[in-house]
Amino acid sequence: MSRETPHKIIHLSVRDVRFPTSLEHHGSDAMHPDPDYSAAYVVLDTDSGLRGFGLTFTLGRGTEIVVCAVQALAGLVVGKTLQEIVSDFRRFYRLLTSDGQMRWLGPEKGVIQLASAAVLNAVWDLWARAEGKPLWKLLVDMDPERIVSCVDFRYITDVLTEEEALQMLVEARRGQRQREEQMLSEGYPAYTTSCAWLGYSDQQLRERCTEALEEGWTRFKVKVGADLEDDLRRCRLIRRTIGDHNTLMIDANQRWDVGEAITWVSRLAEVKPLWIEEPTSPDDVLGHAAISKALAPLGIGVATGEQCPNRVVFKQLLQASAVQFVQIDSCRLGSVNENLAVLLMAHKFKVPVCPHAGGVGLCELVQHLILFDYICVSADLSDRMCEYVDHLHEHFANPVVIKNARYMPPRDPGYSCEMLESSVRRHQYPGGDSVGISMKK
Amino acid sequence: MSRETPHKIIHLSVRDVRFPTSLEHHGSDAMHPDPDYSAAYVVLDTDSGLRGFGLTFTLGRGTEIVVCAVQALAGLVVGKTLQEIVSDFRRFYRLLTSDGQMRWLGPEKGVIQLASAAVLNAVWDLWARAEGKPLWKLLVDMDPERIVSCVDFRYITDVLTEEEALQMLVEARRGQRQREEQMLSEGYPAYTTSCAWLGYSDQQLRERCTEALEEGWTRFKVKVGADLEDDLRRCRLIRRTIGDHNTLMIDANQRWDVGEAITWVSRLAEVKPLWIEEPTSPDDVLGHAAISKALAPLGIGVATGEQCPNRVVFKQLLQASAVQFVQIDSCRLGSVNENLAVLLMAHKFKVPVCPHAGGVGLCELVQHLILFDYICVSADLSDRMCEYVDHLHEHFANPVVIKNARYMPPRDPGYSCEMLESSVRRHQYPGGDSVGISMKK
Repeated sequence: MSRETPHKIIHLSVRDVRFPTSLEHHGSDAMHPDPDYSAAYVVLDTDSGLRGFGLTFTLGRGTEIVVCAVQALAGLVVGKTLQEIVSDFRRFYRLLTSDGQMRWLGPEKGVIQLASAAVLNAVWDLWARAEGKPLWKLLVDMDPERIVSCVDFRYITDVLTEEEALQMLVEARRGQRQREEQMLSEGYPAYTTSCAWLGYSDQQLRERCTEALEEGWTRFKVKVGADLEDDLRRCRLIRRTIGDHNTLMIDANQRWDVGEAITWVSRLAEVKPLWIEEPTSPDDVLGHAAISKALAPLGIGVATGEQCPNRVVFKQLLQASAVQFVQIDSCRLGSVNENLAVLLMAHKFKVPVCPHAGGVGLCELVQHLILFDYICVSADLSDRMCEYVDHLHEHFANPVVIKNARYMPPRDPGYSCEMLESSVRRHQYPGGDSVGISMKK
Repeated sequence: MSRETPHKIIHLSVRDVRFPTSLEHHGSDAMHPDPDYSAAYVVLDTDSGLRGFGLTFTLGRGTEIVVCAVQALAGLVVGKTLQEIVSDFRRFYRLLTSDGQMRWLGPEKGVIQLASAAVLNAVWDLWARAEGKPLWKLLVDMDPERIVSCVDFRYITDVLTEEEALQMLVEARRGQRQREEQMLSEGYPAYTTSCAWLGYSDQQLRERCTEALEEGWTRFKVKVGADLEDDLRRCRLIRRTIGDHNTLMIDANQRWDVGEAITWVSRLAEVKPLWIEEPTSPDDVLGHAAISKALAPLGIGVATGEQCPNRVVFKQLLQASAVQFVQIDSCRLGSVNENLAVLLMAHKFKVPVCPHAGGVGLCELVQHLILFDYICVSADLSDRMCEYVDHLHEHFANPVVIKNARYMPPRDPGYSCEMLESSVRRHQYPGGDSVGISMKK
């Protein structure tokens, strides 16, 4: 970004975009039987003509509430320059997440946090475009000092201070260039969730798994939790189809109480799942800890995070040894800033990060974060993989590229979540509902 | 409620009502320097002509987001009868809090939970009016079976099952009638927060405390957390003014990290506070546990809850011995239903409940819950008191009655949160912003 172009943000628009995925049971699970993958989609216009695109993922009804929250935050963004935002990004992050009146609505959780993520994702996209780099590369090229200056350490200094974080990033510089080259040539390992939604028939399950195997997939996630006998039948079918050498994960989407989770998953142990994902409430740190402890002897880990709203919840999941796999989300957490905090804490606790990427746009976004994690933080691929869901990529200007079941690093500038204007127009809800907030004259 | 009048809900209106409290620094604290006490205010109309009034409390900006969320929930309420709602209230509670698409926006936290509370508060108000009783009396007269049938035990059965809850309520029936009579004659003990907001001058502090002492107050809460030396000066001033025999509590409104909280409060130990309230993030169960453990030798307890969104967080605070005082909130938690869950868990863990009641309308609402707690659950007044703030009561049709620093049980039917229509009209934001959702024809 040259000094001459501060990129003043002169307009923020937010639109409610909904795709009718529920019609074909894509995305169906034990707690969300009929999701319509949707987004609150934000576009920032600057006086230089450069634009930033961001979104947060939703499930359909209620997206208008997130749109309303983005509008409430717009006044904190419009009128600022990109230069002043990124020169003290932590301060700007707190401005959005800790407004003296609006923080009551969270704080740092629920609708207001999803809205912050949509806005901040657009700011990060704008920054990456201003630098002419894909977001992961913007992060990889940053000084460690600059990276930690984007993180809000409030409430996490009991496990990670700014100094420790800086030290970790400096230490991880060794081999960074080789890892970047490795990613550019090989890509980051992925797993697929597209083969085994809860609403699929046995025939669909078998066909999709077989197709995926032919495409080179080796890691598969199955939705469970609605009915134990049905789960057993479906999981056995999938295990038989994919074979013993491939990896199977199961996902209950918060269906159980603590005791129920332990009993149910113990019954499913015969299909040898690597992890049970979201066994219970995402708020229940101690519950996840109890489940982890009970399932450890069976060789099954616990994964959660897609509905954990902030660094404080992740901090505790790590402190309590409640998870063996950390699942970050590019929209649930407050954008890149909050994800950086979680990546750094996970590294300190030596717990692998396996991002959540169902939904619409999440694959496009989170690939950048996990590439940064490998190149600059964890330097490790063992037990690590990023979720992939093969839905709705056709609506993006720079859709993800998967080769041999791996995410190939994006090459285009930005954060990859610009949607095709034709798609936005077609799926806007209700028709023609664009809302814009301009600078006051 | 007679069988003949099912009270079909035919209309829900929600309005954004804001009071300019920031102008005089009422309500100011270390994290919320300029709150404008506000509410999303809900009115339910029924075909019988009976109306239900409910609200959730907010701090000004962003209230429109909660209004938007109430509108999103309205379709789940309008068209139902009170009779069918209360005949399976747990089911209705889940319908609101676990909608397959909207739960993504929480779940059970933030804006969507505040909106659920506003709607459900209005349903409870309607129910109490239909029975011709104040809400506390509706609860007191209910069978234990009926009470537990209002509670969603999902995610808490590892500490409290429906059967245990029922057993506790049956056991607490002994002496219930005497406790009810005692409350009607003596009232429930209160403490005041109105004397020591952070924005007040020393002279204001001294005058307000002196006045309060003359009115019979013996328990005082002071806002702290912005500046240690300033806190010491203010707390010493207040301790000198109220004397050693009275009770002092301090409230940091989430200002500190864990280590900082311990250091800071240790310095304030000389003014002998009963509790430190909200020392850190409301999400940090393990942090509160660490603070509790460190402060126990100083005789200082930890209190939190006004920003804890659901029963799962309270469950963990109790499991981890993280709080010595549980602070329920009538609007942050999902109305009476979710508060019942917390009251029952607190009783099981023998931790006293001291409700949060700052803001607008919270005193009016929460007095009902704490009366029920004493009469039907805890049967104990030791270390128990309900917050009182002397602001904005004049806007309510049935404002709280305080005598000798005690809440006198309301006598009028309902949940006491009907606002004067003239007040609503005057403080509606922006002018004339009423939004109504009617039944589809």
